[in-house]
Amino acid sequence: MGSSWKMMVNETYSLLLVEQQELESFKKNMDDLFLIIMGNFVFFLQPGFFLYESGTVRQKNVVSVAFRKFINTTISSLTYFLTGFALSFGDGNGFCGFQYFALVNLPDEMMAECFFQYTFAAVASSVPSGVVHERSSTVAFVSYTALTSGFIYPIAAHWVATKNGWLSRLGFDDFAFSGVVHAMSGATCLAAAWMTGPRLDRYQSGGQRRVVISPHSVPQMILGAFVFLFGMIAFNAGSQGSISQSGDGSIIAQVTINTLICAMTSAVTGLIYHRFIVDRSKKNWNYSSCVNGSFVGMVAICAGCNQFQCGGAFALGILSYLLYLAIQAIVEKLKVDDVVDGIAIQLGGGYAGLLSVPLFKDDGLLTNPSKSSPWGLLINAGGGIVIMLWSFSITILLYIVLRYFDLHRVSPSDEKLGLDMVIHKEKAYDHTTRK
Amino acid sequence: MGSSWKMMVNETYSLLLVEQQELESFKKNMDDLFLIIMGNFVFFLQPGFFLYESGTVRQKNVVSVAFRKFINTTISSLTYFLTGFALSFGDGNGFCGFQYFALVNLPDEMMAECFFQYTFAAVASSVPSGVVHERSSTVAFVSYTALTSGFIYPIAAHWVATKNGWLSRLGFDDFAFSGVVHAMSGATCLAAAWMTGPRLDRYQSGGQRRVVISPHSVPQMILGAFVFLFGMIAFNAGSQGSISQSGDGSIIAQVTINTLICAMTSAVTGLIYHRFIVDRSKKNWNYSSCVNGSFVGMVAICAGCNQFQCGGAFALGILSYLLYLAIQAIVEKLKVDDVVDGIAIQLGGGYAGLLSVPLFKDDGLLTNPSKSSPWGLLINAGGGIVIMLWSFSITILLYIVLRYFDLHRVSPSDEKLGLDMVIHKEKAYDHTTRK
Amino acid sequence: MGSSWKMMVNETYSLLLVEQQELESFKKNMDDLFLIIMGNFVFFLQPGFFLYESGTVRQKNVVSVAFRKFINTTISSLTYFLTGFALSFGDGNGFCGFQYFALVNLPDEMMAECFFQYTFAAVASSVPSGVVHERSSTVAFVSYTALTSGFIYPIAAHWVATKNGWLSRLGFDDFAFSGVVHAMSGATCLAAAWMTGPRLDRYQSGGQRRVVISPHSVPQMILGAFVFLFGMIAFNAGSQGSISQSGDGSIIAQVTINTLICAMTSAVTGLIYHRFIVDRSKKNWNYSSCVNGSFVGMVAICAGCNQFQCGGAFALGILSYLLYLAIQAIVEKLKVDDVVDGIAIQLGGGYAGLLSVPLFKDDGLLTNPSKSSPWGLLINAGGGIVIMLWSFSITILLYIVLRYFDLHRVSPSDEKLGLDMVIHKEKAYDHTTRK
Repeated sequence: MGSSWKMMVNETYSLLLVEQQELESFKKNMDDLFLIIMGNFVFFLQPGFFLYESGTVRQKNVVSVAFRKFINTTISSLTYFLTGFALSFGDGNGFCGFQYFALVNLPDEMMAECFFQYTFAAVASSVPSGVVHERSSTVAFVSYTALTSGFIYPIAAHWVATKNGWLSRLGFDDFAFSGVVHAMSGATCLAAAWMTGPRLDRYQSGGQRRVVISPHSVPQMILGAFVFLFGMIAFNAGSQGSISQSGDGSIIAQVTINTLICAMTSAVTGLIYHRFIVDRSKKNWNYSSCVNGSFVGMVAICAGCNQFQCGGAFALGILSYLLYLAIQAIVEKLKVDDVVDGIAIQLGGGYAGLLSVPLFKDDGLLTNPSKSSPWGLLINAGGGIVIMLWSFSITILLYIVLRYFDLHRVSPSDEKLGLDMVIHKEKAYDHTTRK
Repeated sequence: MGSSWKMMVNETYSLLLVEQQELESFKKNMDDLFLIIMGNFVFFLQPGFFLYESGTVRQKNVVSVAFRKFINTTISSLTYFLTGFALSFGDGNGFCGFQYFALVNLPDEMMAECFFQYTFAAVASSVPSGVVHERSSTVAFVSYTALTSGFIYPIAAHWVATKNGWLSRLGFDDFAFSGVVHAMSGATCLAAAWMTGPRLDRYQSGGQRRVVISPHSVPQMILGAFVFLFGMIAFNAGSQGSISQSGDGSIIAQVTINTLICAMTSAVTGLIYHRFIVDRSKKNWNYSSCVNGSFVGMVAICAGCNQFQCGGAFALGILSYLLYLAIQAIVEKLKVDDVVDGIAIQLGGGYAGLLSVPLFKDDGLLTNPSKSSPWGLLINAGGGIVIMLWSFSITILLYIVLRYFDLHRVSPSDEKLGLDMVIHKEKAYDHTTRK
Repeated sequence: MGSSWKMMVNETYSLLLVEQQELESFKKNMDDLFLIIMGNFVFFLQPGFFLYESGTVRQKNVVSVAFRKFINTTISSLTYFLTGFALSFGDGNGFCGFQYFALVNLPDEMMAECFFQYTFAAVASSVPSGVVHERSSTVAFVSYTALTSGFIYPIAAHWVATKNGWLSRLGFDDFAFSGVVHAMSGATCLAAAWMTGPRLDRYQSGGQRRVVISPHSVPQMILGAFVFLFGMIAFNAGSQGSISQSGDGSIIAQVTINTLICAMTSAVTGLIYHRFIVDRSKKNWNYSSCVNGSFVGMVAICAGCNQFQCGGAFALGILSYLLYLAIQAIVEKLKVDDVVDGIAIQLGGGYAGLLSVPLFKDDGLLTNPSKSSPWGLLINAGGGIVIMLWSFSITILLYIVLRYFDLHRVSPSDEKLGLDMVIHKEKAYDHTTRK
């Protein structure tokens, strides 16, 4: 009988070990599923970009936008799987990884992360093509898309998101990549738009008067804006990376609410600013100030959404909009023509996000400063600048080559005709009903 | 050796306790994730409303709809987080809660629920703005949106969805809020549309002849209708509130199938009714009777989708459509002008849902009546009326104030020009291809 | 003291059993949730079809497409729940099941699978209506939709996806239904388009010259294409059927990445083929070759996405496009008019997928052949042909009846006027701004 007890103890123990193992394997499955689902939602930002940008351009360039946004998905996925993931998350040094090129030997347990990370590269490479619509060449588009998703973004991500990365080791704090995705791509946008030059009819009277070019379809833009909201919630929530660890659930919930609060506060700020300051006399309500505001807010909150209280998200919503306005003014001053206002949104929102973490987090400079708080601010502020310089300079180098061969934009006559008929020989719409 | 056995027993036991705790914490995470994902899908109803409503109006009011639907998301989120959640789910009395205003001191473990509940408030406040499109003022729109999401809906939700709530204590049975969201907002719709008055060109010949105002884009409407189907499945499934308890999985599956069956049966009912009764001679197939039917069905099934067998969902699909027809006839009789047919859909579907639970559930009056069954019917029927009176009267009060200051609708000349050029100075489309 | 130890051992053991049970029940819940969420995403393919097809047709037939795609959801759900699921997954013989008609006595634990499987039937029945748009009659549409979702597809699914099914017993290997959904519906498409005949203005000069009929809205098509990508990832990932078993997580991640790689490789193949072979002289970039390519790839990868390495997905992306081109050429030769190119996409992609499994899987003919490998190829190749013959011949039978009563297409004058005004008395758009 003594020995039967011993057997029972032994059996219980070994059953428990099996149980533990099963729970661990189940947890891993749920983490993978979490990344796949969140990645799917982030992937859905691709039609968001398509909708918003194709709505914004004139009707003669809609097929061109459709084509490029679809191709962006194609190019970014193939290049990211070929080199991007390897440069980001392969073992390597402080600058980049070099393992898993073409996903060779990628362990099964990294597959879900690989997909999730890809969806970020798709976002990072999609924004820049928006700012130079209606005039940039197909070659230019293909080259900066491939470069961004396969090289520029992955390396910046390696700096920040791996233990080895030099910025990560310095304590750079950027939860869902306000800096690595947004400020980075904002700098690419600036370089691309600057080197491409403005649309022919953007400035009149010898470049003095800025002409408003109205969007061809507001409903398409607004649908795109809603899709952004949906996708960016997952962008931020998915950045938690796992759902099986204690507390993961409430963090992604906090992230979700912070994202909404910051985006919506920034939207209201934009609305009020436009109605009561810009448009005081005319009393118009401007949808695009509100929509752009929401973009700024959702970009800004990425960096700190896992750490902020709701009040921090609210404050950041207002402050990021102010930085956006400042950068927008500079962009206009420089006569850089940005079809979707992407430069100011990504740079303003992204950099505001980087600055917000060391200021607003629980032991931040403005909440409960410790000795190390100023260092945190320095690292985030400086690291953000390095990241922006990195993407800016590579893009400039690319454009120097493109301009040398006169490949950076289409000819003036083609631009006037519209890219749809020139490059694609297709019209976006056929509203004839008689045939 | 005896003591080593004892140690092993002790260790096994404490490992088991750790294991139990880990499983519990994992379960909580998955419940949170469940609510976040379902909440995201429900949140996606926002673009659904935008699409359906902007497709329905005339082209001169499309920017106005876009603006309002985006602002609805903004206002509803900020007001719900400010006061709505506190009035609903804070500790309080039978009438309302008063805790967690501005989400202050909201415990981490309630974050996910807070987001999920917000998405319902967004739905509740979005419907009423649909019925008064093309004529209501911006001020009116902003005030009833804020009032609905920050005050009217949350208090009704408190009555039904908290242990303390007076309707909940009486046994009011409304699983996914056929009453609290849909019938409630239907009554708001009725009050708003009635107090606002019909569009100028809705009635001709001294108000005798009802004019059909055709939608400006059928594809936008239909895309919206598909998005509703998608979102309402999550609306109902998410109402289960958890996924970790035994049986949760099969309940959300039953809920999903019931939602589809009821919506689709109601759609077919609408289709057949229109084709073989209304349109007998002309033999046209009418898409909107079918689409509206699906809306009625998905609204009606909310209350009982967790309890019904498939046959109940099927029967309710037919019956709710009949109630919708009756209310639609009354609305037309009263010469209330409803742009999206929201009053009849929400009141008819919602109230049919409330009545269906005590009739069709497993121990319902029509299936297997017990002594308490009539009481259940009384409570659901009466409680639904109280909820509708609540939202109806507050909305009427608001409109009395608005009308006193002549702020409830735009001027006749503005209405004729269209809200896009008057309020927003923007056109929805620019189909020029030459510039 | 001895007995207290025994009690503790007993208690630990029984606690452990409870723990095991709880984990099992939790796992079942998560499996259900997995199927519900993936099913929701697949269900979202319905608006994808609507968008893509309504964008493709001429403006005079847009309401007709909207109507049919919405009705497709209605009919397919009701028929699948009525007979489809029973014929597929009820107990039965090798040919079909006969249990759970009208979902009667369907056990709770099969509910989630039932919904997930429905979404596949919706896809299978939606594709065929696309190829015969702009000319087929409402009666024809209703009958083949009901027949496909309630009879043809479910029986083919029974053959392959149940232990009992005769193809399943022979070792037919088709993970996410390249054959059962796609090749099957491709054959239905061929039968329907062939029996319906081409659109009146598709061929000129006595049928010699094929006329290009341009789409009425490219943005709608492209949005649809993005929705397909999103939905097909879930189509394939959800086919794993569970998420709680060891390794499920990394399999769905592999599936997701393979789906992207294959779709995108095929898209690039299409793009390059069109730009450098078809359109060498004109130098146009063609969006639709690229979009169609992505469709071919995502259809082809279904069968083997759970087994392939990334390289296999890449190779299949190229090869499936070639088969698509071949079938497209045959379809054109036969003067079969296919509005959305669905025949070549579904047959080419689907059959390429079936062939790819025995060739590319880990012990495939081209990778590491074993003695049984040729048998696998034979079964997949032959089984695919049987499935196609099955759906082809039933559809032909249906059309023989329809043609006998002259019900298969609308009259020539109605076709010229457009189905919107003839069948629905509604216009798709009203772009007037003056009223």
